[in-house]
Amino acid sequence: MQKGMLATLLLLLFVSVDLSAQQDEDALFIKRIHDHTLQRGVCYQWLSHLSNKIGGRLAGSPESEEAIKYTAEQLNSLADTVYLQECIVPYWVRGRREVVKVTNMPGGAQMNMNALALGNSVGTGDIGVEAEVIEVKSLDEVRELGRAGVAGKIVFYNRPMDPTLINTFQAYGRAGDQRVNGPAVAAEYGAVGAVVRSLTTLTDNVPHTGVTRYKDGVPQIPAVAISTEDADKLSYFIKKDKVSVYIETHCKMVAHEKLSHNVVAEIKGSEYPDEIILVGGHMDSWDVAGGAHDDGAGCVHAMQVLQTMQALGYQPKRTIRCVLFMNEENGLGGGLAYAAASNENDEFHLAAIESDAGGFSPRAFSFDATDEVFAGLFRQVTEWEPLLAPYGIQLNKGGSGADINPLKSQNGLLAGLRPDSQRYFDFHHTKNDNIEAVNERELKLGAAAMSSLVYLLDQYGLQRDSE
Amino acid sequence: MQKGMLATLLLLLFVSVDLSAQQDEDALFIKRIHDHTLQRGVCYQWLSHLSNKIGGRLAGSPESEEAIKYTAEQLNSLADTVYLQECIVPYWVRGRREVVKVTNMPGGAQMNMNALALGNSVGTGDIGVEAEVIEVKSLDEVRELGRAGVAGKIVFYNRPMDPTLINTFQAYGRAGDQRVNGPAVAAEYGAVGAVVRSLTTLTDNVPHTGVTRYKDGVPQIPAVAISTEDADKLSYFIKKDKVSVYIETHCKMVAHEKLSHNVVAEIKGSEYPDEIILVGGHMDSWDVAGGAHDDGAGCVHAMQVLQTMQALGYQPKRTIRCVLFMNEENGLGGGLAYAAASNENDEFHLAAIESDAGGFSPRAFSFDATDEVFAGLFRQVTEWEPLLAPYGIQLNKGGSGADINPLKSQNGLLAGLRPDSQRYFDFHHTKNDNIEAVNERELKLGAAAMSSLVYLLDQYGLQRDSE
Repeated sequence: MQKGMLATLLLLLFVSVDLSAQQDEDALFIKRIHDHTLQRGVCYQWLSHLSNKIGGRLAGSPESEEAIKYTAEQLNSLADTVYLQECIVPYWVRGRREVVKVTNMPGGAQMNMNALALGNSVGTGDIGVEAEVIEVKSLDEVRELGRAGVAGKIVFYNRPMDPTLINTFQAYGRAGDQRVNGPAVAAEYGAVGAVVRSLTTLTDNVPHTGVTRYKDGVPQIPAVAISTEDADKLSYFIKKDKVSVYIETHCKMVAHEKLSHNVVAEIKGSEYPDEIILVGGHMDSWDVAGGAHDDGAGCVHAMQVLQTMQALGYQPKRTIRCVLFMNEENGLGGGLAYAAASNENDEFHLAAIESDAGGFSPRAFSFDATDEVFAGLFRQVTEWEPLLAPYGIQLNKGGSGADINPLKSQNGLLAGLRPDSQRYFDFHHTKNDNIEAVNERELKLGAAAMSSLVYLLDQYGLQRDSE
Repeated sequence: MQKGMLATLLLLLFVSVDLSAQQDEDALFIKRIHDHTLQRGVCYQWLSHLSNKIGGRLAGSPESEEAIKYTAEQLNSLADTVYLQECIVPYWVRGRREVVKVTNMPGGAQMNMNALALGNSVGTGDIGVEAEVIEVKSLDEVRELGRAGVAGKIVFYNRPMDPTLINTFQAYGRAGDQRVNGPAVAAEYGAVGAVVRSLTTLTDNVPHTGVTRYKDGVPQIPAVAISTEDADKLSYFIKKDKVSVYIETHCKMVAHEKLSHNVVAEIKGSEYPDEIILVGGHMDSWDVAGGAHDDGAGCVHAMQVLQTMQALGYQPKRTIRCVLFMNEENGLGGGLAYAAASNENDEFHLAAIESDAGGFSPRAFSFDATDEVFAGLFRQVTEWEPLLAPYGIQLNKGGSGADINPLKSQNGLLAGLRPDSQRYFDFHHTKNDNIEAVNERELKLGAAAMSSLVYLLDQYGLQRDSE
């Protein structure tokens, strides 16, 4: 990069930016969006109901059904059409509280650990599983140990999230294979159980659940996450002596295929009804708390977009569709069913924006698209970023969201809302992900950011490079 | 602004930025600063001690003395010189719990309100003050009502903070005159007491204290802040009927002039020892909580800068001085004494950076300087902003901090750390401003941001336009 260009870049950030007349009008509407959302937005009340009154909403559960009903009712007066879209989900239940402890310690001592069974994992039943435990830092380490080192044992994955990564989602991404694929890899080499260090940047006594994936043709072994404090202790004991771990879980997969639904609410576009702008989050959440940040926040962000459009009397040119996806956590049944139906109907999603990174202060949208879409988008970003900058929102390249990712083949723009990530993994998949962990202003600012981007996409569509 | 320039600006943000070799080296050191602070920074432990073990540290109080002693001890091994600098402060105490209630309601009912006496205000003693209450929205409204409308009454200032301002400090600034000057203006027109709506964006039952200023030659009347919920209720009652308010406060100014101290810790510069780079916060805090965000966070941010420099073996070219100011909350005795001594000694502060906006995720530094300094700074900002962008830090024009503001005449750069402001006024000046309200990663990132800016200032100084 030229120094001169950089100088231009930063001088501009340092001085105030003048907007064109059209941009002035857009700036005014974006301010109205924020004023309304902050003063009369209802997303926090919705989230409070979802999180406190309904609670954890794992796919297939009665709570998930209640959440579908509640959100569809709330959306009814905010859209032209509201409907439930069928999808097939697994139905897994945790059952009685997990018992996980260190055993065979010198002197016969035992140490209970704070643990949660991993989602989709098999239970041990009352009899439990007990075996010598070995500590590893990676899946490759298990492969290197091979059957000789692993068979008959419990494998303990203990690689922490990297605290030096500023974006905590990056740290999560780099440690997550231990939970998602670790148990299956351990089972391939004959392990009888798996224990995973909780995925969090905190050191505390709270275990974090989350999905694990078994592999076809490999035995399904019990798998739990333990708190980071217990992980440190277990590691300490292992380094000193040969110790065992006892795992007792009562979870089970009640049904591999159960009928459930996405909730879809749509305002038909007045000029380009075939160009769809989707806003969404996922309705399902882990069973151990109210799923406030993950992902009640995303659902009410998306719902708030419709409420704001209606309250401001905004008639969209393009079709705005709010989708609350089912089963992001342990199967993606909703996201896959939505994309399949959309492709079947030859739909075109001009854009899809997912909020699935919490209800904290919004800081950016990350955009994902084909090179062709990006080529046109560069010019639009130059117009949009100064409009969003007063609200602390930047536009970056990056991923979008698990539920909307299957729409990429439609060659529109995918986007993810990126709130401040520092506190997310304090709550993620724990008993503490409740409404108390969400700040109302921060939540509302996220919804206003989504509404603002929807407004810009609706006004201008996507420029193509050839235009 | 030219569209072409804007296009350049945003294209650059949207693509990755290439750095020069020198910038690569700087980027590496800034990463080391962040790695150290996040992994081995001790600011959170310091803050925990200040907030939990010592508690509220209002100027002149025993707790403030304890905090001076504790921080000086902690700094002792981190600097070449640590000393206490004398300053004169008022010593005000709250005394027994406030009783504030709505009286003379229809049917003889009374309603207790959650209230805190304003800092520096006079107490009523056991006898209390009771009078008809009138509601106003501004100081001008009191002036318009005049003596005829105000004399003998209690004036209730009830203009809320504007929730639509994205930066909550702006909203605070625009509503703050009611608390700071409202009681004195009411007294000028004969009011016998003042009640102020708490300065917060929340609607809840928690009152927020803060300083009020009496005017010479005007009677000193009792003054309290009530919670926003109580303010809404009181306003409702006033609109329905003529009601009274009873105020009983036991606060008093124990001493108008008491000796106290700033804590100063200095690492002498190896090349330009006469160019001082100051980092600071204020040690004093309101008495009702641990003063964690306001401003324990700022103190430990500044202290962490020295700890990080030492841990990384960084020998500064310029003199780095950490200053923990006394009495920002109710007099500015420390800040004024520091500037006076500095001017007396013909010192030059190349830069002074204050952290007094909480321990939340850092988002920017705001720079304040004379036009001459800014003229040179534009070019430096072009080099620095891409180095700080990976940590989410922007560089803007704006205010710096109350304690360092008197240094502006030295014609250096003043800067304020600007963390995310959404949650600040949930805690500010309340019983809830404790360590539990502070997230360790967010706090550490603030300290790392300060250290990074200090590093850049130390490496490059300030370019002057003539250079």
